[in-house]
Amino acid sequence: MKPLHERVLAGDVRAASRLMRLIDDGEPQATKELQAVFPHTGKAYVVGITGAPGAGKSTLTDRLIAHYRKQGLTVGVIAVDPTSPFTGGAILGDRIRMQGHATDPGVFIRSLATRGNLGGLSRATGDCLKVMDAMGRDVVLIETVGVGQDEIDIAQLAHTTVVVLVPGMGDDIQAIKAGILEVADVFAVNKADLDGADRVVRELRVMLELRHAVKAPPMDHDAHHRMVRAKAEGKAPPKEEASQEWEPPIQKVVAAKDQGVDELVGAVAQHRAFLESTGQRLQREQNRALTQFLALLRERLLKAGLERLERERGNLSDVAKRIAERQADPYALADELAGK
Amino acid sequence: MKPLHERVLAGDVRAASRLMRLIDDGEPQATKELQAVFPHTGKAYVVGITGAPGAGKSTLTDRLIAHYRKQGLTVGVIAVDPTSPFTGGAILGDRIRMQGHATDPGVFIRSLATRGNLGGLSRATGDCLKVMDAMGRDVVLIETVGVGQDEIDIAQLAHTTVVVLVPGMGDDIQAIKAGILEVADVFAVNKADLDGADRVVRELRVMLELRHAVKAPPMDHDAHHRMVRAKAEGKAPPKEEASQEWEPPIQKVVAAKDQGVDELVGAVAQHRAFLESTGQRLQREQNRALTQFLALLRERLLKAGLERLERERGNLSDVAKRIAERQADPYALADELAGK
Repeated sequence: MKPLHERVLAGDVRAASRLMRLIDDGEPQATKELQAVFPHTGKAYVVGITGAPGAGKSTLTDRLIAHYRKQGLTVGVIAVDPTSPFTGGAILGDRIRMQGHATDPGVFIRSLATRGNLGGLSRATGDCLKVMDAMGRDVVLIETVGVGQDEIDIAQLAHTTVVVLVPGMGDDIQAIKAGILEVADVFAVNKADLDGADRVVRELRVMLELRHAVKAPPMDHDAHHRMVRAKAEGKAPPKEEASQEWEPPIQKVVAAKDQGVDELVGAVAQHRAFLESTGQRLQREQNRALTQFLALLRERLLKAGLERLERERGNLSDVAKRIAERQADPYALADELAGK
Repeated sequence: MKPLHERVLAGDVRAASRLMRLIDDGEPQATKELQAVFPHTGKAYVVGITGAPGAGKSTLTDRLIAHYRKQGLTVGVIAVDPTSPFTGGAILGDRIRMQGHATDPGVFIRSLATRGNLGGLSRATGDCLKVMDAMGRDVVLIETVGVGQDEIDIAQLAHTTVVVLVPGMGDDIQAIKAGILEVADVFAVNKADLDGADRVVRELRVMLELRHAVKAPPMDHDAHHRMVRAKAEGKAPPKEEASQEWEPPIQKVVAAKDQGVDELVGAVAQHRAFLESTGQRLQREQNRALTQFLALLRERLLKAGLERLERERGNLSDVAKRIAERQADPYALADELAGK
């Protein structure tokens, strides 16, 4: 039998599933296979679908799958599940609605659960995306609940990020809206047959205009580097912002009735054309490469650091106990392990 | 003038604010001051308030502040804001409701914004908590939007975690509910004067009973260690779970009308008594020490790793560019930096 990565590159669904399982289990073989497919990735167009809980993202994703399939494109879907930090188990929830595509070989759906507490989800999503890309999927949809920082990072793995909003959410949603404003390339106002849809559209327009008013000058390479560096270190980035020529369109949809979805697919296509004509697609690829590399690096560094800690200081629970009893200094310990 | 840490330990609000600013700015002096106050921490009782957007957490936090102040206790509040991943700026949102306590020296409120993409928020919250603890605050309230993994981690910094729910949220909320079930020590069903409050209470009861039915045997030290290790590495933890004797009470409240808040404060006090009488408070302290240490370690390791990368391979943006162009192998690079 051919090596796993060759079968993945040939589009073999079972081989891809197997590689994803190896990745999940943290098998060393997984890294070798990923390294082998990596040079062949970068072809899939990646669309992120994010938004607050209850916005109907799964139903919308389901409709988008159908529309892309009608265009003759193959589709991969990564559904990132909110789930228990303890059990690691995925909650199926309304993802069941996507089951209509279960028998279509042109649709490959993978659910990813939140696991661990160290951004492992971002790394796992990135790896999963690479496998779907390597398989030759034309479009990969990544669906996340866009509230936490992790989810926003994941949304940024996409070329085009669709932020889904609905009428009638609470005040906190307004704050979140402001938070996701900068990651949105296209807004979908779902359940647009409900009262208040026009209000959401109006509020979004106001926010976009406000952003215009405070728009910073274009960012040069050094400024971009400073921002990237600050983000990587968890500091507040300097107040410099890349110029954004793209004006995110606001599309009303009723996903449950398949209304407005054609227009939404059109808006995504327009954004894609914009990215490609301006050369910004390359910038997105670099941002994605950076996000994925940082997630990977963080995981590997921590693993190595913890191994060293346990070799030299005993197991992690005991170290935690000594810190809790104020017998060990966590700052000194962290600096020591970081080689300071 | 006395050194900063001495003034913080004496309860000086301005010194505490200054130390928090130093921490925010990543000044090396901050670590020294934190190290100096660290042995004197561990006295404050920490209450986490988390829940979905729109659940009315800020209003409830405001009421809790008032109740604790009535008991003669000093209060610290850390309000973790959902915010822009780019600008690093905090969204005030309805936090303004807490302004009523602005002139009370017994209340110290600090907002923390999401920043960076590497769990820096968890580390920042932990440091902020240490400062408030060192200042001698009797109770520290940590308010977070409990959706992302980061937020759940932050909620776990608390001795008692109050999960706030409201009637009439969508399907996704059900999934999130399952995710936060295990971190909840007390449930508050807010806006209990709205239709559907009793349904939320019933659903919670069913979920708690289901959990009972699948309850695992008590976890021994080794099992706990395996779970902690797996979590730290971002793997799915083994299916072992600590026995939970505490049955989370479900309290209906109408925060806006101050109804049920006395009873909620009572439920928190009961949980505290439970933790202290069973020795589980120490376990919580250890979990907290572990969470904070891992956040710190991750940050320091990454910082050191990135410094080495930039010394040896050029700046991060250029490395990202080479990865995006498939000229550099991110897996090999990460392993190299992790010393493999």
